[in-house]
Amino acid sequence: MSRVDELVQLLGQQYVLTGEEAQPYIVDWRGRYRGNALAVVKPGSTDEVAQVVRWCAANKVPMVPQGGNTGLCGGATPDSSGQAVVLSLTRLNRVRSVDTENDTMVVEAGCVLQSVQQAARDVQRLFPLSLAAEGSCTVGGNLATNAGGTQVLRYGNTRDLVLGVEVVTAQGEIWNGLRGLRKDNTGYDLRNLYIGSEGTLGIITAATLKLYPMPVAQCTALLALESIEDAVSVLSAARNGFGAALTGFELIAGNCLQGVVECYPQQRIPFEGDAARMPWYALLELSDSESADHARERFEAVVGAAIEAGLVQDAVIAENITQSKALWHLRESIPLAEKAFGKSIKHDVSIPVSRMADFVQTTNAALQANFPGIQHVIFGHLGDGNLHYNVAKGQARTEEELLAQQDAVYQLVHDSVHEFGGSISAEHGVGQLKRDALPRYKDPVELALMRRIKQVLDPDGLMNPGKMLVP
Amino acid sequence: MSRVDELVQLLGQQYVLTGEEAQPYIVDWRGRYRGNALAVVKPGSTDEVAQVVRWCAANKVPMVPQGGNTGLCGGATPDSSGQAVVLSLTRLNRVRSVDTENDTMVVEAGCVLQSVQQAARDVQRLFPLSLAAEGSCTVGGNLATNAGGTQVLRYGNTRDLVLGVEVVTAQGEIWNGLRGLRKDNTGYDLRNLYIGSEGTLGIITAATLKLYPMPVAQCTALLALESIEDAVSVLSAARNGFGAALTGFELIAGNCLQGVVECYPQQRIPFEGDAARMPWYALLELSDSESADHARERFEAVVGAAIEAGLVQDAVIAENITQSKALWHLRESIPLAEKAFGKSIKHDVSIPVSRMADFVQTTNAALQANFPGIQHVIFGHLGDGNLHYNVAKGQARTEEELLAQQDAVYQLVHDSVHEFGGSISAEHGVGQLKRDALPRYKDPVELALMRRIKQVLDPDGLMNPGKMLVP
Repeated sequence: MSRVDELVQLLGQQYVLTGEEAQPYIVDWRGRYRGNALAVVKPGSTDEVAQVVRWCAANKVPMVPQGGNTGLCGGATPDSSGQAVVLSLTRLNRVRSVDTENDTMVVEAGCVLQSVQQAARDVQRLFPLSLAAEGSCTVGGNLATNAGGTQVLRYGNTRDLVLGVEVVTAQGEIWNGLRGLRKDNTGYDLRNLYIGSEGTLGIITAATLKLYPMPVAQCTALLALESIEDAVSVLSAARNGFGAALTGFELIAGNCLQGVVECYPQQRIPFEGDAARMPWYALLELSDSESADHARERFEAVVGAAIEAGLVQDAVIAENITQSKALWHLRESIPLAEKAFGKSIKHDVSIPVSRMADFVQTTNAALQANFPGIQHVIFGHLGDGNLHYNVAKGQARTEEELLAQQDAVYQLVHDSVHEFGGSISAEHGVGQLKRDALPRYKDPVELALMRRIKQVLDPDGLMNPGKMLVP
Repeated sequence: MSRVDELVQLLGQQYVLTGEEAQPYIVDWRGRYRGNALAVVKPGSTDEVAQVVRWCAANKVPMVPQGGNTGLCGGATPDSSGQAVVLSLTRLNRVRSVDTENDTMVVEAGCVLQSVQQAARDVQRLFPLSLAAEGSCTVGGNLATNAGGTQVLRYGNTRDLVLGVEVVTAQGEIWNGLRGLRKDNTGYDLRNLYIGSEGTLGIITAATLKLYPMPVAQCTALLALESIEDAVSVLSAARNGFGAALTGFELIAGNCLQGVVECYPQQRIPFEGDAARMPWYALLELSDSESADHARERFEAVVGAAIEAGLVQDAVIAENITQSKALWHLRESIPLAEKAFGKSIKHDVSIPVSRMADFVQTTNAALQANFPGIQHVIFGHLGDGNLHYNVAKGQARTEEELLAQQDAVYQLVHDSVHEFGGSISAEHGVGQLKRDALPRYKDPVELALMRRIKQVLDPDGLMNPGKMLVP
């Protein structure tokens, strides 16, 4: 019996895909990584996942776990050998239970993030993880990559939203760690070891998620700023003035907003005169547990003080939900409007907030010295120290000329990030994209510890090989 | 040269203690665990810690890391063999740096928690970890045990307050993982693996801690309640009404408050009539980023609605800081006032909040069936699902008779905790106290994973042997 036939015997014909049917699973959604696979399998339960893993382990077949296939680093795409089985978790899509008094929810790895958000809303609760791919990414992928998104400032990264996990180990055992406990000090933190491990240690099949109260009102403000230093000072004032009610603090370079209104003429920058041409803007969001009026009053007090202190040049505070949405729409249009600058070289980096201004100034200068005339396209989640620091061609060169220098640009920016105590992957993970750069920036002791953990939990190296660590 | 002489050569005479000088370090502060040691050493820097560890590794000498020696589970006391070196971290007590714009602080493991809180206050920031032993426990011990305390509801456990760690591995290498980044997805979460591992995988020598804004005002309320079910409903309403401003929700059985006023006649229960004799009380704390008046107004709205709904029988909202402190003093006096009930058998457990009422009722009944007449002494952090579920002798037996049944009581309570999906150690850890109970309650797959991690990071089993895992 062939290997594929054995898989068919385990799962049934319709859940073992090969040939054309397998295509959507062996290439990432942007078409940047293309692999090959023995088969794509779709187990329907944790037990079936464990059966497939045991079969793979017995036959020394590599496994590539996959959720919504929305990753940005090639972490869910198999290599080109055609030896691996792609293990799609999408059929594990049940919300197993919701406990409103405990504010927890047990969901399977294949649940689409948006459906989890909705299941929480259905019981008047908030599941705060929110990111661009939420309509198609899965919770399993979110956990595997410790996804970030727009609510991290208040609610943390994915790992901070998870109380327990169910895992199929590399040997095909099932660990039921779905505890719904806020306190549990009875051993090593295996939960956090699997979260963020990109499927290289085992397969997360379900999770117990934290739920939060729904905010009563949300209010948004856009501030016009002279410098990143001023933005950092305003962030500090906003954290002090709003406490945990501050749920968003986005930094936007002036040219990004200009790009948006050029691409989408129906949108506008809501300032006049000089304030419409500032080098930097900040978008703040306040989530209030009292009322919209109360949120606005608080904004007026804190923003008013920042204007008086000369930190803010002009400010627009949304009068209502429509205006709030319009301000967020400006921010959310930036990635699409980046085409105004041509294809760019993108970096997802984090820097201590206190060194952010210095990092941008130093790195911009180094880029101009090495690649004269390139254009900086910078925005990101300043509250989390996370910058999308992108580099476009400018007037002096073509897209092709820029992209030919991609590796040199990567290295210059990442070297600078490292110099400033930052991380070369803030929220997207390592996957294939940054795997080979890791040894350049990671403490060698840390990298050796990672290898030892990998070696003991997956001694045959079958779990998502070639991702994160060089095999 | 003797082994002690070799240690003296490494660190100098005054930092290698033996005989009488070593006594305070080989017995825990309550005198429940007594061990013996080759020597107690006090390295003065991370490099010296690494030198001692390398010496121990080369000579196959077990190591017992120790902070303030305030643990409750014997986790920092050596065994009686006299083979181990106690590695006291107390000389590593510098605040290495404070970064107010990044809201982080790098401190060494031997810093006393209270001095860290003060260093944060000195720059108008809050380091929220707070617990009874804060005047003598060290940050290293807090990290090693993932300490809980009174602010977990809002700020999380110790692991949630840490962005990075510096670790000396079991081989004596130094891993500098002191990143001050809120987002960093470049590998396995080794930070959380070392946090809570009770010194069995390596030695944490420093940490990067998160700082928070200081609340502008705090307000406290004491509610008189008919049942735990009502307390859980009020918790839900308070979470909805206050959001992240709810920083404390303590549950107290009526007999605990009675015990406090019996022991300390200068304290009083601030209710009259039936409300002074309710079976349960809840102490709520609200931390406001606006004003004391605002905090009080919010309390009045939410507590008023709970009274109207029949969930709360009576309520006292503190008018000022003095009254707030008096209410907290009642709560904080309970552990000392427990002597009114005689020596008790203590349990530090957690239960999903939704199952708390059922757990208490079921477990109380089972205890009465097996140990008729025993007395229940129950209080804890309901907001975290954490109960200090203690058992006193009652009228029917002597202290000695009760303590003779300690193991049977432990097992009955812990079996019930397990049945209700809870944890037998919520915030105190495992140490020696609960080590042998762990295999009874832990998923065998999880326990096997823990053993494999231990094996690969500490193959010679020299790091705090006999703690958490049976060697």
